[in-house]
Amino acid sequence: MNVSASGGAGGGARRRVEITKRCEFSAAHRLYHPDFSEERNYEVFGICANPNGHGHNYTLDVTVAGEPDPQTGMIIDLKLLKDLLDEILIRRVDHKNLNADVPFLAGCVPTVEMLVLRFWDELDGRLPGCTLSELTLYESRTNFARYRGGAA
Amino acid sequence: MNVSASGGAGGGARRRVEITKRCEFSAAHRLYHPDFSEERNYEVFGICANPNGHGHNYTLDVTVAGEPDPQTGMIIDLKLLKDLLDEILIRRVDHKNLNADVPFLAGCVPTVEMLVLRFWDELDGRLPGCTLSELTLYESRTNFARYRGGAA
Amino acid sequence: MNVSASGGAGGGARRRVEITKRCEFSAAHRLYHPDFSEERNYEVFGICANPNGHGHNYTLDVTVAGEPDPQTGMIIDLKLLKDLLDEILIRRVDHKNLNADVPFLAGCVPTVEMLVLRFWDELDGRLPGCTLSELTLYESRTNFARYRGGAA
Amino acid sequence: MNVSASGGAGGGARRRVEITKRCEFSAAHRLYHPDFSEERNYEVFGICANPNGHGHNYTLDVTVAGEPDPQTGMIIDLKLLKDLLDEILIRRVDHKNLNADVPFLAGCVPTVEMLVLRFWDELDGRLPGCTLSELTLYESRTNFARYRGGAA
Amino acid sequence: MNVSASGGAGGGARRRVEITKRCEFSAAHRLYHPDFSEERNYEVFGICANPNGHGHNYTLDVTVAGEPDPQTGMIIDLKLLKDLLDEILIRRVDHKNLNADVPFLAGCVPTVEMLVLRFWDELDGRLPGCTLSELTLYESRTNFARYRGGAA
Amino acid sequence: MNVSASGGAGGGARRRVEITKRCEFSAAHRLYHPDFSEERNYEVFGICANPNGHGHNYTLDVTVAGEPDPQTGMIIDLKLLKDLLDEILIRRVDHKNLNADVPFLAGCVPTVEMLVLRFWDELDGRLPGCTLSELTLYESRTNFARYRGGAA
Repeated sequence: MNVSASGGAGGGARRRVEITKRCEFSAAHRLYHPDFSEERNYEVFGICANPNGHGHNYTLDVTVAGEPDPQTGMIIDLKLLKDLLDEILIRRVDHKNLNADVPFLAGCVPTVEMLVLRFWDELDGRLPGCTLSELTLYESRTNFARYRGGAA
Repeated sequence: MNVSASGGAGGGARRRVEITKRCEFSAAHRLYHPDFSEERNYEVFGICANPNGHGHNYTLDVTVAGEPDPQTGMIIDLKLLKDLLDEILIRRVDHKNLNADVPFLAGCVPTVEMLVLRFWDELDGRLPGCTLSELTLYESRTNFARYRGGAA
Repeated sequence: MNVSASGGAGGGARRRVEITKRCEFSAAHRLYHPDFSEERNYEVFGICANPNGHGHNYTLDVTVAGEPDPQTGMIIDLKLLKDLLDEILIRRVDHKNLNADVPFLAGCVPTVEMLVLRFWDELDGRLPGCTLSELTLYESRTNFARYRGGAA
Repeated sequence: MNVSASGGAGGGARRRVEITKRCEFSAAHRLYHPDFSEERNYEVFGICANPNGHGHNYTLDVTVAGEPDPQTGMIIDLKLLKDLLDEILIRRVDHKNLNADVPFLAGCVPTVEMLVLRFWDELDGRLPGCTLSELTLYESRTNFARYRGGAA
Repeated sequence: MNVSASGGAGGGARRRVEITKRCEFSAAHRLYHPDFSEERNYEVFGICANPNGHGHNYTLDVTVAGEPDPQTGMIIDLKLLKDLLDEILIRRVDHKNLNADVPFLAGCVPTVEMLVLRFWDELDGRLPGCTLSELTLYESRTNFARYRGGAA
Repeated sequence: MNVSASGGAGGGARRRVEITKRCEFSAAHRLYHPDFSEERNYEVFGICANPNGHGHNYTLDVTVAGEPDPQTGMIIDLKLLKDLLDEILIRRVDHKNLNADVPFLAGCVPTVEMLVLRFWDELDGRLPGCTLSELTLYESRTNFARYRGGAA
């Protein structure tokens, strides 16, 4: 039997596909800037500035791009990708306080926009054989941020 | 035109229907018992005992039962129900730390089981013209508790 | 090979299981009572009294109960159940105006509470070999009604 | 600090709460009865009788009931519950063929009704300190079965 | 403490992130063209041409792009964004009949494709400090349209 | 009445919108390469190499792009699109074994990456009046692949 992972009829075309692994974690955070007064923090961040924090169930979609391997049909083994994501990122933020417990978030107001940028910096270049293509971070059912790399 | 809210053909039967309003809030919590040692807390509650807390997007389904009003077809006005739930409960827990900021949760390990019981006590008897029938509280996509009133 | 649909080890117990078919339809409605003044209708029903109506994607969960057939393992064939529900109910309300187009809703303020009762009356006793056990009608992501039969 | 897991004001009432753990697995199955002819199998089971099988992502909601522990606020540790469910049930059906690979499903047409009954028999009595209260098994977005124990 | 909203290690890179606010509204509509005959309307639009209309729960994802503010970590305050969207758009379509009640939809067959274009025209240029980047409008669970600006 | 499907105020701009139809199907598959040994298959594909296969509920989002017709407001009739997708693709994979039953998947390890490429080849160029723009195939809640055409 002649098995090829090429998607095209002729088998010659190389094609770039994206694959996404969805991850979940729960964390507390507080939106405030240490140089702002309490009043200024409430003015800027509203109830999100509550000193004792609040929290979210976050969902993170990690999208990588590549060409499927001709033999395995895979860009990257999704089980390996999940293990890498857990080790590099998820276990460092799951059941943590994002203001206090996560070194790579130091000096960062943990808005969903900032988190997606910092998560990108943690993951970019560390996923073997594929390219980080897009990160989407859901803070709630109605709020989410997306980053696709590159400068403004 | 003869409009009746009775659902039955003969119009004579009185029938009990349940209606549910889904609410959402975000909060931080930490699972620990103040009388336990740090070690014992981690043993019992695992990563949920993290001292700086973590958090969740909670979903609360509030189910009330009653007979639809013959003229309006409503057990209770859902807009009124939402306003009441916001006032009695949701604004007191949304963007709060459930260990520190909520008086009616004092002395309570804020597991999803305990929260649903305490929420019941706050709501029961305070919804005009209908009976609290069931509360379901989702702490995450995979964990939720339900209480239908009454003793064990 | 000895195939039995009995779930129990001994095979002798008869057990009641429930099975649910989820259906979807889209419809317009307006909440108002013809005997009320315009002002009274807005007072009672708020923006739902808009004269030109509004609409919803409704989801209906139809739950039937029965004992699985010893040979087929089925309470009722789910394909047959779907066809029956389409014929008896769904095609009569899908892409309709619930105030104007549906004879069995005549004289009914089409609240989600009233709809679930009228839908029950249409379905009850017409599903061969099983018993209608529960109807849950979702009018939106946050509003839904449930009816389990019987009087108040 | 006086921490009590009692939900009631007086602290004296014992109250029964339900808690649910949602699990997921993927499996293949085929609906057919070995004593039926090929034609009869297609007549009864339609496209589900395809000899090479088809498959589903199943979702199983396991609900247990009990009284929260006065100190921990928990009916059962949800992490322990998940580990038990994985060991007793999920690893035996995940990424399996339900007709061929699962001894406790032998002699059973793997309809969603039958699966929920057999899953109940595997779990009932094996979850320490709490009572199995309800199983809901989703075969697809629109088909699901529920069993609450007991005879017909 | 040195807090910077820059996502990069060096802090010098300016990076474009997207943030999305999900909104919901319910509305009635009818698909028909006033210059078509009744027969032609049914031929083109099928059951969607029902004269009394039908309706949907719509979900609108509004995506804006920008560079997070170095101090607040925000592209735009999500609470402000929600208030603006409610005022500019959502309150004008929620619980309305899209054929009759919405001036900016006049002369438009309210398909999901047309709605997303008209919504874009209402929102574009009116969101301070950020750029409208993408609109996705869900008419139902299975039908949705997306527009990213620009000409064909 | 002057009805135009143009979204712009002046009516002159031609604008490209995307519309998506979501489809669902259930299928069995097994990940293995016929030239690999049993050990090598388990090493590469893990539990997905189970000889009797497993299965999934797949969701496929088919996105097409085009300019809405000035009279109908439609890029393509969504009912027609659904019928075409069912005929060209869905009925050939629904309730099938993707390793054994689908000719156009012959010689292909049915990973989600490969499936999305082969599905593209089946659909591209066969949808009248519009351009296939994007395919997203969900194999589970957490794994999905996307292809937008073109070479790597």
